[in-house]
Amino acid sequence: MSKVWKIGVAGLGTVGGGLIKFLAERPDFAPVGDRAVVTGVSARSRSRPRDFDISGFAWFDDPVQLARSPDTDIFVELVGGSDGPAKASVEAALSMGKPVVTANKALIAEHGAELAALAEANNAPLLFEAAVMGGTPAVKMLREAMVGDDVVSVAGILNGTCNYILTEMESRERAFADVLSEAQAKGYAEADPTMDIGGFDAAHKICILAALAFGGAPNYPAAEIEGVDGVDLIDIRFARELGYRIRLTASAELGEGGVSVRVHPALAPLAHPLSQTVGATNALFIQGVRIPRIFIQGPGAGEGPTAAACCADIADIMTGAVRPVFQKPATQLKAPGAVDASHRQARAYLRLMVKDEAGVLAAVTETLAEEGVSIDSFLQKPVEDEAWTPIVLTTHETVETKIIAAAKRLEALPQVLEKPRLFRIVRA
Amino acid sequence: MSKVWKIGVAGLGTVGGGLIKFLAERPDFAPVGDRAVVTGVSARSRSRPRDFDISGFAWFDDPVQLARSPDTDIFVELVGGSDGPAKASVEAALSMGKPVVTANKALIAEHGAELAALAEANNAPLLFEAAVMGGTPAVKMLREAMVGDDVVSVAGILNGTCNYILTEMESRERAFADVLSEAQAKGYAEADPTMDIGGFDAAHKICILAALAFGGAPNYPAAEIEGVDGVDLIDIRFARELGYRIRLTASAELGEGGVSVRVHPALAPLAHPLSQTVGATNALFIQGVRIPRIFIQGPGAGEGPTAAACCADIADIMTGAVRPVFQKPATQLKAPGAVDASHRQARAYLRLMVKDEAGVLAAVTETLAEEGVSIDSFLQKPVEDEAWTPIVLTTHETVETKIIAAAKRLEALPQVLEKPRLFRIVRA
Repeated sequence: MSKVWKIGVAGLGTVGGGLIKFLAERPDFAPVGDRAVVTGVSARSRSRPRDFDISGFAWFDDPVQLARSPDTDIFVELVGGSDGPAKASVEAALSMGKPVVTANKALIAEHGAELAALAEANNAPLLFEAAVMGGTPAVKMLREAMVGDDVVSVAGILNGTCNYILTEMESRERAFADVLSEAQAKGYAEADPTMDIGGFDAAHKICILAALAFGGAPNYPAAEIEGVDGVDLIDIRFARELGYRIRLTASAELGEGGVSVRVHPALAPLAHPLSQTVGATNALFIQGVRIPRIFIQGPGAGEGPTAAACCADIADIMTGAVRPVFQKPATQLKAPGAVDASHRQARAYLRLMVKDEAGVLAAVTETLAEEGVSIDSFLQKPVEDEAWTPIVLTTHETVETKIIAAAKRLEALPQVLEKPRLFRIVRA
Repeated sequence: MSKVWKIGVAGLGTVGGGLIKFLAERPDFAPVGDRAVVTGVSARSRSRPRDFDISGFAWFDDPVQLARSPDTDIFVELVGGSDGPAKASVEAALSMGKPVVTANKALIAEHGAELAALAEANNAPLLFEAAVMGGTPAVKMLREAMVGDDVVSVAGILNGTCNYILTEMESRERAFADVLSEAQAKGYAEADPTMDIGGFDAAHKICILAALAFGGAPNYPAAEIEGVDGVDLIDIRFARELGYRIRLTASAELGEGGVSVRVHPALAPLAHPLSQTVGATNALFIQGVRIPRIFIQGPGAGEGPTAAACCADIADIMTGAVRPVFQKPATQLKAPGAVDASHRQARAYLRLMVKDEAGVLAAVTETLAEEGVSIDSFLQKPVEDEAWTPIVLTTHETVETKIIAAAKRLEALPQVLEKPRLFRIVRA
């Protein structure tokens, strides 16, 4: 009765190691009663020191060969990267009708529709629970639990590294660059941190969630992306003084004409669950028509949680469930249209560095008034011995394009030193 | 290609109505592409006024006949009650190999293992997402997303009526009985509220989650149950003064010798997510070995959310997934053993009504000291013109049986008026 599934694991980093260690101990973990046994592995280096033994597995220099091996029933892709060997090996497995499990958000966000078509044409499941909020089942929730509703928006914190940095900056009063290099030294941030701090990792993830939430193709090129590198300690302090924390939010919302997918720093009120999400933790709000609001919070990375997410996918494959990769048959998937920005409303935080001289406030407030942006709160702090002083204001809810236009005009004022920092404020 | 599934709905209350309205509009909601069409219905009264039309469906006085009808492919049981027509009709459907979807927590908590055996013997799925946290997919998370981990505990707020009452008592400074009768008048609480306020509804739900979390049979008789009817406004006020809110918590924890399943009022620190869960909202913490902590919060009842949960189950049936009802084949299911209470540690809140006379405090503190219970904080408030005065104390963490023994001895003191109120304190 009980079947043995031979698992090929490409990529032996943190997640691959976690998976191999777990399956060695618990090949019979799946409720269905089938067994999952790793038979082949592939990685860049065969001899790199590892805290697990790979001598019992067949070795493949090329993950494509591992995917094709007759000893691979389920191919687990943990190589990473949107193209190259990751994509080639996933394609190889799918085109032979083999189920694929991947933690690769770049691959799914950038080539999801194409891979879904290949998967469905070959009746091969393509699962990626570990790609988003590793260990916290956001993918399963949107793909399966919300199908009896119409999702209106998904929004949250999807990058643990950025949230860790923002939390540390606040709690330890440290500058962005300091916290980043410390995080790199501890292994919490990559040597090249661009994907994380630039917001691209969160953007990959929210594109995947958007596709599942709204039944479209992932549309990474349409995502509006701003990272945390523009957040200074002074902004964190001002935000705090105004009753907020800064978080890198990722959101996908149904709007006029399509779906708005965005990643940017935003101010969340102190009591808001996103403010209360600290360190590397991830969090997500799902809002529907019938189910008004679900909030889910949990780990977003790490060996244990991410490997557990891959195992959940393997267990799902064993059940024989057949479902489209992105809610609709891949042949019907369309990339959603862009939202007409002139309909988007927002409240915003603006920080200007201005010359400490008479007439500055008048110039700033006049510019805002002319653009139709009204001020909700205003802060100016005396600065020790500088010629430049920061002023901070929050706006009332206004058409977002007006706020952006006002910021542009403010930047051009002779009394304004640098590009104003503009962060949106999360709705309470 | 696309199949039409004929749905028989027994029970036309809130959830049944929501389901019928949704399927009338969206028979093609499921990602697989099959259609779900209601063909037959059953309820106590055919002619009761309803805000949806049942004239197009075959009518059955007896839900068992509806389950058996050749025009029922999937049987949806929304009759309620642990036995009687609910159980009989579910058994009728399962024994014919028909998939069953139910929102009936009493049925699953009290007869889950037996029904699982029947379901599996007949290869019929038995799904009950709507039975727990209707609309918030706690069942799916434990059944499917956590299979790559070992769950250590699940704990949260599973009864919206109780949470609504506790929230209203606090925010409006109203007595329990007042809020309850108002909730009944508004339809938020049943005419006979025993199941809710006695903690039995939450106990049914936590038994189901425990079975999914730990892979055992639901073991309702072993649940320790205490409702909210022992919570007075004075306790809510004292708790607040000490920095807590009172919540009816339901928990299942792996412990020495088995699983401890309990429902009782408990004090949660103000900043704790359970304190922050207000009104009819439900919330759940899932703690695992690899996935350290997931928190999920959302609706726990209501037409829209609960009907959406039933639809998610219907969509799952369409995928053809085969899995055991409770993580292990029903033939291997055992009811978990009881936990040795002498190992359980807790902090507690104790309120005593004492005679306002000399020597009372000495008697109380001496009794606690003799039982080895040490006091963390202490509150005594002057009371207007009463001969009795409340004193409130919180304990340090101690073996729970010692606290209970101390409370029993305190009750026997001549200066103590009534049974002390003893509530546990949630770990931060």
